[in-house]
Amino acid sequence: MYSYDYLFDFTKSVFMKMGCSEKDSNIIAEVFLAAEIRDHSSHGMIRINDYYGMWKAGRINIKPNVRVVHESPSTAVVDGDNAVGMVAARRSMEIAIEKAGTAGTGWVATRHSNHFGIAGFYSMMALKHDMIGVSLTNANPLVAPTFSISRMMGTNPIAVAIPASKNPPFVADFATTPIARGQLAVAEKKGEKKIAFGFVQDKTGKPSDDPTILKSGGSMLTLGGDRLHGSHKGYCLSSIVDIFSSIFSGANFGPFVPPSVAYLPVLEKKVGLGTGHFFGAMRIDAFQPAIEFKAKMDEWIDTFRSAKPAEGQERVLIPGDPEREAEARIMKDGINLVPAIKNDLATIAKELGIDFN
Amino acid sequence: MYSYDYLFDFTKSVFMKMGCSEKDSNIIAEVFLAAEIRDHSSHGMIRINDYYGMWKAGRINIKPNVRVVHESPSTAVVDGDNAVGMVAARRSMEIAIEKAGTAGTGWVATRHSNHFGIAGFYSMMALKHDMIGVSLTNANPLVAPTFSISRMMGTNPIAVAIPASKNPPFVADFATTPIARGQLAVAEKKGEKKIAFGFVQDKTGKPSDDPTILKSGGSMLTLGGDRLHGSHKGYCLSSIVDIFSSIFSGANFGPFVPPSVAYLPVLEKKVGLGTGHFFGAMRIDAFQPAIEFKAKMDEWIDTFRSAKPAEGQERVLIPGDPEREAEARIMKDGINLVPAIKNDLATIAKELGIDFN
Repeated sequence: MYSYDYLFDFTKSVFMKMGCSEKDSNIIAEVFLAAEIRDHSSHGMIRINDYYGMWKAGRINIKPNVRVVHESPSTAVVDGDNAVGMVAARRSMEIAIEKAGTAGTGWVATRHSNHFGIAGFYSMMALKHDMIGVSLTNANPLVAPTFSISRMMGTNPIAVAIPASKNPPFVADFATTPIARGQLAVAEKKGEKKIAFGFVQDKTGKPSDDPTILKSGGSMLTLGGDRLHGSHKGYCLSSIVDIFSSIFSGANFGPFVPPSVAYLPVLEKKVGLGTGHFFGAMRIDAFQPAIEFKAKMDEWIDTFRSAKPAEGQERVLIPGDPEREAEARIMKDGINLVPAIKNDLATIAKELGIDFN
Repeated sequence: MYSYDYLFDFTKSVFMKMGCSEKDSNIIAEVFLAAEIRDHSSHGMIRINDYYGMWKAGRINIKPNVRVVHESPSTAVVDGDNAVGMVAARRSMEIAIEKAGTAGTGWVATRHSNHFGIAGFYSMMALKHDMIGVSLTNANPLVAPTFSISRMMGTNPIAVAIPASKNPPFVADFATTPIARGQLAVAEKKGEKKIAFGFVQDKTGKPSDDPTILKSGGSMLTLGGDRLHGSHKGYCLSSIVDIFSSIFSGANFGPFVPPSVAYLPVLEKKVGLGTGHFFGAMRIDAFQPAIEFKAKMDEWIDTFRSAKPAEGQERVLIPGDPEREAEARIMKDGINLVPAIKNDLATIAKELGIDFN
């Protein structure tokens, strides 16, 4: 088990050694660790190796000039200058929050960025300003639209954070697919031969229960699974996330979103700049006095928490409960890293001349 | 088969006879007919009887003072004064579009409204202004959160309309449940004994295939169906729609959203005013020059339309394709009304002293 502080300092050192500024390295470490403690480890320390590989391949700009290229009172477009995604994303969300301070709401589309880690981190930045935060990103294509076998979209997440008063905030943070890509990788690493149906299809579009199917031309399904159960709604959601992240910003869309790992080649065709994100901040008191809104959110949360559980279930959860409970547990017990990730980090540490035990 | 014009004039006459202004009656008829021609007939003429019943019971205000009660440069809260939902909703979307004209984006939360018909109508109002339109509403509770058997939420739809140039617009308009409430009613009316699993559960939370299960304490499931397949993501979506529609506006939330039919009693407990909606308009050129954005949307649409179909499928659709094709067909062939709806409309016509053949 590792402490938060140890892994934070290590991660910061890795990115500083790669040439990132101390400020940027702090941001990057904070987002990686946020994923670990919220038990979204698929977006945590495991990804450092991906960024390290991208840096060695010269595919990331560690001295970026992240800047606003277009704006209106409530909107901006940010060019991430091929930065580490967390750096472009955090700055973009800050701008959304600034805009909301004067215009009531702020909406920022970001282009020429890279994988930004855990989406919920940015939406949660709004909470302490008594704002609702929204965070979307497109991602490299693994998902097929309804009726299709082409990998056209990423798992394109949606994160929305809403403040309450006596209750902890409502924080929804979810991929627009039934499961995350990482869950397939985990099943495969555990040697599981079968997963449930409804997550993936084979190269002809037939339902599949094979966790390795992506390697033989298969694709992931959208939320809903099949047309009968509403996969076209998941396709709509994933499309909206893609369009807001890319067409608003000038980033690559859909099948042209660049890979976030160096072992995959740079795509031949580009239709924009890098990966795209979209951020929103909505000042509560642009609608209702913040104290009244937050009291109503308490009532909403209390009402939904007291919904009657189904037989065999103990309780009904509020979005954000599982991650908050994980955070309390992991901050106390420490962060567990599996051997493969430890080995990767040890290799990086050795190459960069820093300690990792 | 009825012509668009015949049913438009009839619907307008019904609402004028009820006492609505000619302007409001035009709006109401336009939205009802939009649902019919887009083949969302569950939100079309069938609902006139519901509104007629609500009017006879004195539960609707046909001379409303729809007004802004709070605003910032990019936001407003509208009080619908218990209007017919279409009247409050259309005015609210107009305000969102006005706000977007100056602030880049406009966001309007509406309280004290009623059932507003087809959500896509309002999001599509933004298109001719070169804006993206967003429309959300809460609805009377039929849907249980993940792990619960309590009916806490409506089928809370999301509609997003995005303009293109040479291609028709992208228009997503979908409930945050696998199927709409109306599909259960249709199965029941057709005498079907069984529906697919994944849409409803019984009063204990057990999966059910009984289309009448809502009558014996059952509930609808969220998009995703079960926890394994991501029902918690559908729960997040439906919650977000509910919170944006109610807590921002001061409307009733979740289980307290009032019924939209007179045969259900007024709820004893109120936590706000009426039904709530949420509207957004985003001026494209607050992000990118409109001509460039729309050309990119054409490229997005062409790319997705040319995705490879799965075996046995003819083509891959773009959100909005089915409704647009229905509109072309129905405007040519006419609107079909089933006998039960015709009978209802004939009764209304007789009572109000107008013609209906």
